[in-house]
Amino acid sequence: MPYVNIKITREGATAEQKARLIKGVTSLLSDILGKNPQTTVVVIEEVDTDNWGIGGETVTVRRRTGR
Amino acid sequence: MPYVNIKITREGATAEQKARLIKGVTSLLSDILGKNPQTTVVVIEEVDTDNWGIGGETVTVRRRTGR
Amino acid sequence: MPYVNIKITREGATAEQKARLIKGVTSLLSDILGKNPQTTVVVIEEVDTDNWGIGGETVTVRRRTGR
Amino acid sequence: MPYVNIKITREGATAEQKARLIKGVTSLLSDILGKNPQTTVVVIEEVDTDNWGIGGETVTVRRRTGR
Amino acid sequence: MPYVNIKITREGATAEQKARLIKGVTSLLSDILGKNPQTTVVVIEEVDTDNWGIGGETVTVRRRTGR
Amino acid sequence: MPYVNIKITREGATAEQKARLIKGVTSLLSDILGKNPQTTVVVIEEVDTDNWGIGGETVTVRRRTGR
Repeated sequence: MPYVNIKITREGATAEQKARLIKGVTSLLSDILGKNPQTTVVVIEEVDTDNWGIGGETVTVRRRTGR
Repeated sequence: MPYVNIKITREGATAEQKARLIKGVTSLLSDILGKNPQTTVVVIEEVDTDNWGIGGETVTVRRRTGR
Repeated sequence: MPYVNIKITREGATAEQKARLIKGVTSLLSDILGKNPQTTVVVIEEVDTDNWGIGGETVTVRRRTGR
Repeated sequence: MPYVNIKITREGATAEQKARLIKGVTSLLSDILGKNPQTTVVVIEEVDTDNWGIGGETVTVRRRTGR
Repeated sequence: MPYVNIKITREGATAEQKARLIKGVTSLLSDILGKNPQTTVVVIEEVDTDNWGIGGETVTVRRRTGR
Repeated sequence: MPYVNIKITREGATAEQKARLIKGVTSLLSDILGKNPQTTVVVIEEVDTDNWGIGGETVTVRRRTGR
């Protein structure tokens, strides 16, 4: 029954990678906490780099300067 | 003053359906908890089926197999 | 499969009221969008009035002044 | 280490405005709570006006009637 | 830089289990998507069973009837 | 009409500090994006250090080792 929300920057994650992430997180919740995988929900949200800030600046700016 | 966030898979909900959902949830919060409808906020987020997992697999895969 | 998150101020909602809210929102999603009630998740979060702001001030202050 | 999520309607916020918002919120958390700006994350989400409700109706409808 | 929010019912997860979950999710994001573990944030929220609904009823009620 | 959610570790933020944060964020949204302060909602959530992870470990562990 857990609900997991994963936010990442939109920088080309593939459908296959997202499927592996969903499978992996669901397994972790089952293995560590005994949660039922059938009702575990995982939602991935991809956010434009203009809309993600860390250290007071956008990821767009950080990428431009090689970070 | 309540804030409601509804996440659904992006599978063709119409503007009219979303408007009905917003109206219905706002009424429920007023009827059951006496919350002021004027300051009740409802945000609907539609998520690609590649990004939504349940039972350890994506909704894309589930739809493909008729579930 | 929808996921609904409802945030309200912690001001005495009863277990019975919260149960009605969960039932009502789940029905709305089924009636309007045809979503399966069995996998609809509703999570209610109650937030202290010191931690909720509207109009630039906390609900604690608003309640004190009769709003 | 704080995490801030800002949801606004998608109505033309520019990259420059979003960058200023990220910078401003990060500074506030540092100035008021002494939080380390280097690990402060700010995520802005822009939501279609059809998907944002207040007062029981969508922002699309409100804009149409001059509100 | 990813942000992960995990919501579970408050039913006795230990600090050790939560630490393992944080470590596991952070590793998954590094292994699958190449995300930097140093800036990956994981927040676990535990929700009272009265406040968590699935299938239109609260987890409190479901537990009472052995589900 | 913006909605802002701020998550911080529960480490003693005072009501006065939280009120200043709410006021500051509301002003930023008004100054930068022209958002109406009267309908801007800010919700602060304080999370136990056992439940907050960064760099793959909990804040509880990091604080114990002077970080």
